[in-house]
Amino acid sequence: MIPFNKPYLTGKETTYIEDAVTSGKISGNGIFTKKCQFFFEKKYGFNKTLLTTSCTDALEMASILINIKAGDEVIMPSYTFVSTANAFVLRGANIIFADSKEEHPNIDETKIEGLITPKTKAIVVVHYAGHACEMDTIMAIALKHNLFVIEDAAQAIDSFYKGKALGSIGHLATFSFHETKNIISGEGGLLVINDEQFGDRAEIIWEKGTNRSAFFRGDVDKYGWVDVGSSFLPSDIISAFLYAQLENLLDIQQKRKAIWNTYYEQLKPLEKKGLVKLPKVPENSTNNAHMFYLVCNSNEDRKGLIKHLKANHIHAVFHYLSLHKSPFYIDKYEGEKLVNTDNFSEVLLRLPLYYELSRNMQEKIIQKINEYF
Amino acid sequence: MIPFNKPYLTGKETTYIEDAVTSGKISGNGIFTKKCQFFFEKKYGFNKTLLTTSCTDALEMASILINIKAGDEVIMPSYTFVSTANAFVLRGANIIFADSKEEHPNIDETKIEGLITPKTKAIVVVHYAGHACEMDTIMAIALKHNLFVIEDAAQAIDSFYKGKALGSIGHLATFSFHETKNIISGEGGLLVINDEQFGDRAEIIWEKGTNRSAFFRGDVDKYGWVDVGSSFLPSDIISAFLYAQLENLLDIQQKRKAIWNTYYEQLKPLEKKGLVKLPKVPENSTNNAHMFYLVCNSNEDRKGLIKHLKANHIHAVFHYLSLHKSPFYIDKYEGEKLVNTDNFSEVLLRLPLYYELSRNMQEKIIQKINEYF
Ligand SMILES: Cc1ncc(COP(=O)(O)O)c(/C=N/[C@@H]2[C@H](O)[C@@H](O)[C@@H](OP(=O)(O)OP(=O)(O)OC[C@H]3O[C@@H](n4cc(C)c(=O)[nH]c4=O)C[C@@H]3O)O[C@@H]2C)c1O
Ligand SMILES: Cc1ncc(COP(=O)(O)O)c(/C=N/[C@@H]2[C@H](O)[C@@H](O)[C@@H](OP(=O)(O)OP(=O)(O)OC[C@H]3O[C@@H](n4cc(C)c(=O)[nH]c4=O)C[C@@H]3O)O[C@@H]2C)c1O
Repeated sequence: MIPFNKPYLTGKETTYIEDAVTSGKISGNGIFTKKCQFFFEKKYGFNKTLLTTSCTDALEMASILINIKAGDEVIMPSYTFVSTANAFVLRGANIIFADSKEEHPNIDETKIEGLITPKTKAIVVVHYAGHACEMDTIMAIALKHNLFVIEDAAQAIDSFYKGKALGSIGHLATFSFHETKNIISGEGGLLVINDEQFGDRAEIIWEKGTNRSAFFRGDVDKYGWVDVGSSFLPSDIISAFLYAQLENLLDIQQKRKAIWNTYYEQLKPLEKKGLVKLPKVPENSTNNAHMFYLVCNSNEDRKGLIKHLKANHIHAVFHYLSLHKSPFYIDKYEGEKLVNTDNFSEVLLRLPLYYELSRNMQEKIIQKINEYF
Repeated sequence: MIPFNKPYLTGKETTYIEDAVTSGKISGNGIFTKKCQFFFEKKYGFNKTLLTTSCTDALEMASILINIKAGDEVIMPSYTFVSTANAFVLRGANIIFADSKEEHPNIDETKIEGLITPKTKAIVVVHYAGHACEMDTIMAIALKHNLFVIEDAAQAIDSFYKGKALGSIGHLATFSFHETKNIISGEGGLLVINDEQFGDRAEIIWEKGTNRSAFFRGDVDKYGWVDVGSSFLPSDIISAFLYAQLENLLDIQQKRKAIWNTYYEQLKPLEKKGLVKLPKVPENSTNNAHMFYLVCNSNEDRKGLIKHLKANHIHAVFHYLSLHKSPFYIDKYEGEKLVNTDNFSEVLLRLPLYYELSRNMQEKIIQKINEYF
């Protein structure tokens, strides 16, 4: 079987974990946590970063930081993972879903302004497949209406919009290191704090609502309960694993991009024949090769192709189900039809893409796709 | 320097982490997560368990499961860690703090009933130092007033009340595997679900508000958004580490108990002279040797002793600050004076206690304590 995903190890992970363990500190905010945070801040120009146990948790921190209260409205795409919404629902927000673009699962920036009301507090964008949303337009809308912008950059490590790293543009941003991502730590995430007003409070919320960080820096002589918060910080074991990955970021990215490009080149003829559509990287965006997907012509086609590939021991998978139609939200949704969201939900298909996908395996996948059509 | 705590490694941790990693699944709910959960359920007779990223997160799951809403009241001791309270404050609860017993930091069960109002939803007990609260009385009060009982058993692994494992008595219970605990994984926790009504929903909340667990069992053909939730599940890397610890539970506990008993026997003469008080294990409770503490006669004594030990390269530390007097709660607190809480907050001192504390080191600590008085 060619799996859909296979976590890649650089070889240094367990060495660094042993280092963390022998350092005598494996709880959160240890040496490797600081190393990772420093890496991100330096490489991508992020103002301040905090590792978290998941992207979901980083989104929850964002939700607490912008002070989401019952009845606040948050605009986001419906074609995204459940966590993008749940982080705000947990704090009482109503989610206002915007449609995707016709040619890309990213939020359609022209649909946002019409959804703004006096209750709107934030816009959450999701850089799907690591491809940038139209950030200049979105930041301008936010500025005009005094809203916060949060980048759900779960899939968007090492990708850029007009030369700026994704995650460095919104007031806050979040990344995922779940094993399905480019850079992994099993479970894991990162909160990026670009807007300085949030820096001190972020540290407190991260450390269970205490000023423990200030205490360990020697700023106060005991720490105490000063705010709400949770245990958002990962064990340094996880950070040690992550650091090994970060050291090999360049290699990982080169490999993934080569695989992505092979798919793109070799499946181009199918697109020319009108049998499928290939991903369209937006004009102002780079491609971080997080994902290679096909847009099928129909749900039947997608089903058929999944089945055909499976029969040939290849695991290809669909992706998000429209959140506004989910069992949890269908009775709460009052907006218009989200045609593009529903379409991607029906016809988008993801192909295996991981470091150890060999040339042979990829050729087999491409051959079997061609065979189906 | 003799540190206050030193994480102990059994030697198998990194081997199991490599096993997890080569299994190809290091995200949550993997092989080692299941092994750990099975271990807990079998050994302690817990009905159902779910590993979490921390005890804090397990408490938050409990808070979501019992449907805490704005204005609900939750009764708990004030002498506890911030997370016990924050997990409920995050969902809008008002915390009603009860005093500790005179002779033990545990919640005074005779003070609970007077704090119950029509808004009370739950009682959270904290088994301080792994010593059981008076659970028969507390469960009877809860039954009479139709309240949920949650055991914050962060420190209480492998300890028993009248023969029943702590964590198996309340409707829900939570454990911590933070590096300061007996059994560790850097950061980590466990939710115990004793009341069956919570089983299915717990699994959903754990998996980001989706029925993903049912999907991977093959019960449904796709998973979707069905409830609120978060990413409460730890990476299997963390679970692999934890499993190595669990295999050595007996050895770890024997070692810790021996150290605890040595402190107790050798410091007894100081208690006899009225210079300090030693821990009093409650009648119906076992002692899991999580912590050895002294109750000093005054805050000056505690300060002096900390200083004297520090001058001799021994790190001894105070513990919780009264939550009802914290910067976060002081303006919200309307109850009476919590005399015993405040006292423990002023005079309780914890001594180094960890697997690798040698006989020599312990003798030095005891000698230096004697020297002070
Ligand atoms: C009942 C209960 N319920 C839930 C949970 C959540 O578990 P999770 O972590 O799994 O989510 C816990 C966990 N608590 C533990 C420890 O019990 C707690 O002691 C503390 O440990 P630390 O790493 O801070 O180390 P330390 O050695 O306790 O102190 C180090 C210095 O800090 C000073 N200090 C200390 C305190 C406490 C305080 O308020 N203020 C303060 O100035 C004393 C020293 O000089 O934090 C941990 C997370 C709990 O106990
Ligand atoms: C924008 C965004 N924001 C935030 C976060 C939070 O990050 P953290 O995890 O760090 O907190 C994420 C994370 N998402 C990832 C993946 O993107 C997501 O795909 C999924 O991955 P899975 O392990 O489930 O694997 P899979 O291979 O995606 O699918 C496996 C099978 O499941 C079927 N499936 C799939 C979906 C999605 C669904 O709804 N319903 C459904 O029936 C398709 C297959 O047959 O879950 C992850 C956590 C995100 O993308």
